[in-house]
Amino acid sequence: MAKPLLVHEDRLFSSDPSQRGIARELYALVKDYPILSPHGHTDPQWFADNNNFGNATELFLAPDHYIYRMLYSQGVAMEDVGVGGRAGPSSADPRAAWRIFAANQHLFRGTPTAMWMSYVFNKIMGFEVQLGEDTADLYFDRIGELLASDAYKPRALFERFNIELLATTEGPTDTLEHHAKIRASGWPNGTFKGRVVTAYRPDPVIDPEHEDFHAKLDLFADLTGEDVRDWSGYLAAHRKRRDVFMTMGATSTDHGHPTARTANLSRAEAESLFKRVLRADVTPEDAELFRAQMLTEMARMSLDDGLTMQIHPGAWRNHNKAVFDAFGRDKGCDIPMQTGYVEELKPLLDAFGNEKNLTVILFTLDETAYARELAPLAGHYPILKLGPSWWFHDSPEGMTRFREQVTETAGFYNTVGFNDDTRAFLSIPARHDVARRIDANFLARLVAEHRLELDEAAEVIKDLTYNLPKAAYKL
Amino acid sequence: MAKPLLVHEDRLFSSDPSQRGIARELYALVKDYPILSPHGHTDPQWFADNNNFGNATELFLAPDHYIYRMLYSQGVAMEDVGVGGRAGPSSADPRAAWRIFAANQHLFRGTPTAMWMSYVFNKIMGFEVQLGEDTADLYFDRIGELLASDAYKPRALFERFNIELLATTEGPTDTLEHHAKIRASGWPNGTFKGRVVTAYRPDPVIDPEHEDFHAKLDLFADLTGEDVRDWSGYLAAHRKRRDVFMTMGATSTDHGHPTARTANLSRAEAESLFKRVLRADVTPEDAELFRAQMLTEMARMSLDDGLTMQIHPGAWRNHNKAVFDAFGRDKGCDIPMQTGYVEELKPLLDAFGNEKNLTVILFTLDETAYARELAPLAGHYPILKLGPSWWFHDSPEGMTRFREQVTETAGFYNTVGFNDDTRAFLSIPARHDVARRIDANFLARLVAEHRLELDEAAEVIKDLTYNLPKAAYKL
Amino acid sequence: MAKPLLVHEDRLFSSDPSQRGIARELYALVKDYPILSPHGHTDPQWFADNNNFGNATELFLAPDHYIYRMLYSQGVAMEDVGVGGRAGPSSADPRAAWRIFAANQHLFRGTPTAMWMSYVFNKIMGFEVQLGEDTADLYFDRIGELLASDAYKPRALFERFNIELLATTEGPTDTLEHHAKIRASGWPNGTFKGRVVTAYRPDPVIDPEHEDFHAKLDLFADLTGEDVRDWSGYLAAHRKRRDVFMTMGATSTDHGHPTARTANLSRAEAESLFKRVLRADVTPEDAELFRAQMLTEMARMSLDDGLTMQIHPGAWRNHNKAVFDAFGRDKGCDIPMQTGYVEELKPLLDAFGNEKNLTVILFTLDETAYARELAPLAGHYPILKLGPSWWFHDSPEGMTRFREQVTETAGFYNTVGFNDDTRAFLSIPARHDVARRIDANFLARLVAEHRLELDEAAEVIKDLTYNLPKAAYKL
Repeated sequence: MAKPLLVHEDRLFSSDPSQRGIARELYALVKDYPILSPHGHTDPQWFADNNNFGNATELFLAPDHYIYRMLYSQGVAMEDVGVGGRAGPSSADPRAAWRIFAANQHLFRGTPTAMWMSYVFNKIMGFEVQLGEDTADLYFDRIGELLASDAYKPRALFERFNIELLATTEGPTDTLEHHAKIRASGWPNGTFKGRVVTAYRPDPVIDPEHEDFHAKLDLFADLTGEDVRDWSGYLAAHRKRRDVFMTMGATSTDHGHPTARTANLSRAEAESLFKRVLRADVTPEDAELFRAQMLTEMARMSLDDGLTMQIHPGAWRNHNKAVFDAFGRDKGCDIPMQTGYVEELKPLLDAFGNEKNLTVILFTLDETAYARELAPLAGHYPILKLGPSWWFHDSPEGMTRFREQVTETAGFYNTVGFNDDTRAFLSIPARHDVARRIDANFLARLVAEHRLELDEAAEVIKDLTYNLPKAAYKL
Repeated sequence: MAKPLLVHEDRLFSSDPSQRGIARELYALVKDYPILSPHGHTDPQWFADNNNFGNATELFLAPDHYIYRMLYSQGVAMEDVGVGGRAGPSSADPRAAWRIFAANQHLFRGTPTAMWMSYVFNKIMGFEVQLGEDTADLYFDRIGELLASDAYKPRALFERFNIELLATTEGPTDTLEHHAKIRASGWPNGTFKGRVVTAYRPDPVIDPEHEDFHAKLDLFADLTGEDVRDWSGYLAAHRKRRDVFMTMGATSTDHGHPTARTANLSRAEAESLFKRVLRADVTPEDAELFRAQMLTEMARMSLDDGLTMQIHPGAWRNHNKAVFDAFGRDKGCDIPMQTGYVEELKPLLDAFGNEKNLTVILFTLDETAYARELAPLAGHYPILKLGPSWWFHDSPEGMTRFREQVTETAGFYNTVGFNDDTRAFLSIPARHDVARRIDANFLARLVAEHRLELDEAAEVIKDLTYNLPKAAYKL
Repeated sequence: MAKPLLVHEDRLFSSDPSQRGIARELYALVKDYPILSPHGHTDPQWFADNNNFGNATELFLAPDHYIYRMLYSQGVAMEDVGVGGRAGPSSADPRAAWRIFAANQHLFRGTPTAMWMSYVFNKIMGFEVQLGEDTADLYFDRIGELLASDAYKPRALFERFNIELLATTEGPTDTLEHHAKIRASGWPNGTFKGRVVTAYRPDPVIDPEHEDFHAKLDLFADLTGEDVRDWSGYLAAHRKRRDVFMTMGATSTDHGHPTARTANLSRAEAESLFKRVLRADVTPEDAELFRAQMLTEMARMSLDDGLTMQIHPGAWRNHNKAVFDAFGRDKGCDIPMQTGYVEELKPLLDAFGNEKNLTVILFTLDETAYARELAPLAGHYPILKLGPSWWFHDSPEGMTRFREQVTETAGFYNTVGFNDDTRAFLSIPARHDVARRIDANFLARLVAEHRLELDEAAEVIKDLTYNLPKAAYKL
């Protein structure tokens, strides 16, 4: 007998009756708010072309590193659940792949993946029985039917999800053609007001250790007409691309460096450094220094063009050599590292920390920085705000630790609401629902413990859900 | 309509009924205990001269870095809320400054500042409506009236607050004239038994990187008659000043170094190092080594004179260069750093760690050290005790994390009760009230979970409130 | 009047009624499960000879570093509570020692020691009054009587405790004679199915900084007939000893290095390094590199012989020099250090991280690694599993933090259940009871917050208690 699938209306709320009562009340205030998704990784082509999604495996398993890394940790080969490698796409039968996932649901107990997926299955797709070995085929078939229908096309779902703004992330050499197509299409129209915008993520032309650095520089030159191997031309090219991105709605940049290090070299030093990083024998020290210098350069450009800057440091990318060799980048093998901010950000802060027209949003994979470094920094420097708990910490416990550890020093108003940061489009409502519930639950505890008045909590949850991201990302 | 201001009788207690019931019972045992404040930064001149305090802005805003750093983080200029700079006092109108603070109360939601201030406004000053834009003038005027009255003079408040002991902190070259005046004044007299004492904080003559190091050394020489640029004379000068401080009630020393590093050099090495740190071109390495050596020297002196030693490491002082240049030290710009203790303290511990007549109280701004380093060290070495959660962590969540993370390894009896560490005199009862409530709440959970008997918890909370600080600081 | 001693049936369960109800239900499922103790430090001679234990001091105080480190931190000399030193056994009167412990029970409030001891006193020994000054002699006498009885002999307790498997830990040069004697004895027989097995802990012949390194190498040579000062012979000797340990039931190895560093040198480099570490003037860098290399060698051997590998890094051993000089190793003076895993494990992971027939269980004393490094690593690499919270973190709060911080990324199924890691034989049931209660309580919260279904939680707690350790340790 398949077991019933329930997404309980009190999910994630404290079982203490007084806290739960307050949490329900606060959550009710924002549960139907439109979604602001200012930082994510969905594919703009979905909304440009509005083609139907494929099957369950293609949609849910193959692109979701949370899922296949867990399966892999328990001995499931990635190619068996549909993950393609350098040698080409997975040859796994999608239904067989789906059955593997279905048979391993227990691995996800207590993880956010379980919570997101049950929401998607129940609330978005209408399943009323749990996924398991016995229901694998039922799920696979029904998902296939739904995805083939008009109601599950990307634009229809976008409207159904009530997304007011969705930012994708593109590299500096992306042509932005899909964004252009969306804009030209006239969608959305009528009463629905949602927007799809891009964000500028220049890492491939900033990181001299990126395997495509020189190839991307060539493209960067082609797209901008600048001599990008000259320091002035290189900076001018960034300015041009930022301008183009802004025509496609960009209001932010994003920087995924190994560390939070910044630098503020003299022009002569920066020019000389740039020459060195263009050489094939660039040293790790120079590569790191160049990334550091470029954060400061990006801040300087943001002062002019107004783009909000996001710094996402601290991942050791592609830690598993064998998986990287066989499958390439971004295959669930990134591991967080200890990350410092106090010394690292000082050069940028010395230069621009007290500006009134610059916003720099900091993220971390190292929770030890929350109370020790990030909250004290954001609770003082006018330019700094704290992004939500991120990636491995985008979870009920992770979000709760974030609020518990930053609020007392940075308050709520130096944070910027939720980012879903996902390429799993169907899970976006599930993720925002988790964030709203956890914020409601955290605030409910403060109210129940007489640390905050209920009317204050009501204002705060609206601000966290809507007003703070809108302001920080200039939406 | 102004909203009512309530300081709920169950503030900070768990909303779980059984925990709350026990917390109330434990809190009731200690809520009226006298206040021991063995570490703080109030101005002894207040109690020496007993002049009335000024207006609300001068009393509450201008000296409170918790307040103006939060306002500054949201774009409020420090001079606009009364903070003076190197160029002189703030020219802001005090009432206008107060209105800014009043209009920005939402920034403090969920912070200890909000909790302290509402206690002060309600319990100390009798306000029954919340501070906000609409009540800014009401507050400013009424506070002005109160502060002009006899009942709000420093000594009257000291007695009303039922302070049994208040330690201030003075530099080694302070003349202690205010302390002498207090003693000469015969206050307190009658049935009230409170005392104001000093504490010896020699950082300015120990830190070769302090901007006033040489000027302070000159004063140090004048005050002691020692040749303080000779190693023996320098040490002798410390001993003399410690003796003088003890005549003004000092029972402790305090050391606010960047790190917890200690050293135990041979006499010849120490002499040679001292010569090097007196030079204008002292290196950062030598400066650090000298501070390290001086912690061990201070411990050696404490063995002789019995002063309890406090080590407060881990702040990057004056991190914001522009603010430091315009406003000087201690302007809310100190940021915690990662801080190690295991290797750092070993030289001092090798020398004196097993002494029975020495107490060294350790503090941290790096909570990661609680369970990993500090509790294991304090749960073994006879000389070590743990100070309470400090500064950014002097907060409900910070105190709770402290107890949760140190108790299982260090117990309660290697901790020393609460320090308010404040220059905000009126907030002292509020701060001790928070600490007593959080201890009651933490103990109530242990009792409710059958991990501790109620009679044991009752003994512990009395010890935490009174007996442990009294013993550790030899009050 | 002596106070009653109660071990409450709801000990450690949340006082929230709905959580407590679920926790009871889950705990009831596993409370009578047999004990699997795959990692510990009991003495196999106890079970080989089956002699009666001595008096209370000899059994409970002298060997328990949790107890005497706490007493020592408060000024109690270790020799006064029965701890022997380099100069010989303690000359303290056992009854006098016991009275000291009895009079200092308050020091252990809120610690796991208090919880373990009250369980032992009440559930194992039948005391119904608390230990204190007034009951010290009552306890001492009664414990003496019990220990002299047949029912409290080691084998009788082993059976009463329902231990299915108990692993001891032996050094590479241990003769394993006690294990052989147990096997030869035919015990256990009848319906009881328990087993005592060994585990291979080669640290003394792997750590060139161990004070007995060369003496142990000589024994290693004698026992194996190999030329252990030749790289090939040295490795062959390890293989031979592993085989012998496997005949005494070993299914695992254990490695207690200062750090988690691994290396994967070429054969020539390793040989050359081995020559250097055999010299009297071995450098700390070479010693560290050799330990690192040997973790990879041990993993290679595990691939062949199937032994599960345990890595226990991060303690600064014998931190208190004076105690080490007077009392020797393992006297409660080990202090945790900051410990990294991401860079440190990479050489081993590059070599064997994706193997299907290797299990490496990671432990830490640095809780900051849980969410940042260990859960992301174990949630990806097939060979990695996470050991339970360890040593200073083997406590209710420590276990709860472990589950809260690793589950969302690693799930439950990349963890391996509980290790008691103890030499305090009588406390084994108490420790497993704490672990089962905390797991029940953690799962109950997830169920009460609608994050997990009750039937899922029921499966998980059985897996954590029994199936996961059985699988990970191949029991």
